[in-house]
Amino acid sequence: MSIERIQPGEWNARAVVHNGIAYLSGIVADDKLLSIKQQTTQVLAKIDAVLAEAGTDKSKILSSVVYLAHMGEKDDMNEIWMAWIGKDNLPARACVGVTLTPNTKVEIMVCAAI
Amino acid sequence: MSIERIQPGEWNARAVVHNGIAYLSGIVADDKLLSIKQQTTQVLAKIDAVLAEAGTDKSKILSSVVYLAHMGEKDDMNEIWMAWIGKDNLPARACVGVTLTPNTKVEIMVCAAI
Amino acid sequence: MSIERIQPGEWNARAVVHNGIAYLSGIVADDKLLSIKQQTTQVLAKIDAVLAEAGTDKSKILSSVVYLAHMGEKDDMNEIWMAWIGKDNLPARACVGVTLTPNTKVEIMVCAAI
Repeated sequence: MSIERIQPGEWNARAVVHNGIAYLSGIVADDKLLSIKQQTTQVLAKIDAVLAEAGTDKSKILSSVVYLAHMGEKDDMNEIWMAWIGKDNLPARACVGVTLTPNTKVEIMVCAAI
Repeated sequence: MSIERIQPGEWNARAVVHNGIAYLSGIVADDKLLSIKQQTTQVLAKIDAVLAEAGTDKSKILSSVVYLAHMGEKDDMNEIWMAWIGKDNLPARACVGVTLTPNTKVEIMVCAAI
Repeated sequence: MSIERIQPGEWNARAVVHNGIAYLSGIVADDKLLSIKQQTTQVLAKIDAVLAEAGTDKSKILSSVVYLAHMGEKDDMNEIWMAWIGKDNLPARACVGVTLTPNTKVEIMVCAAI
């Protein structure tokens, strides 16, 4: 069965598509000076774009992991997340605090049906 | 192909079922005053219930990630985990230390065949 | 549909195979005295072996999570990762800093098509 790689980059592909599932890489904001809300907005816009390239959209996200640099910013992230994902599209999700690259406040990894 | 959402909540669904796989959210204990062993027991009971609602059970867990607030509590978590999962049902697993919400000692995320 | 467990161990299986996907456990180096580059080399060799046992190889890895004990060692890990995975085989990947068991510097979890 075919394996399609979307936006292969330095050490990962933005997404890999196989057997009706798009596996996305952890996505981070480009502008590290942004606030957590702004970084989350930018991350989710990038996820929208990658999902579109894979032939799907946020309503088909199955599972997700939200990595936060500061768990105290979870509420702010959630506010942007909820406005984006919508009540009818809730995926499985875990949200945990980890160390990210400097000034990266949030990294989100999802897989979606196509 | 259909996407079924089980127990949609505030910002995630407890599980999402698609193409014969149940993707569960990271599950945490409700009672944050419990010890690591007690929280693990409560988490695994909740996972049992969600898997049942998805039409499957722990013998069909494929992959799992155990997030611990304190890696020094791994042995205690493992003791409860092993009594629960059973030697014939071992899934793939990673166990890592992260920051969880205050007083949450363990969060477990699994996916299972149906 | 069948579930095959590869190298069941103490609390997990090295891999679980179901419906054309191999789900691997988080793999760590055996020798904890090794440097990050050496541990990464050892981890990737172990992943090669498990993938082979599952009937697949690194060119079919779909998604991966690299857990590092020290994010400052990401460049060193990436150098070994890139030499191993190759430009044509890039999977989805996230790389985050977490607490691992003492002296473990890197743990890598992948899933691969078969």
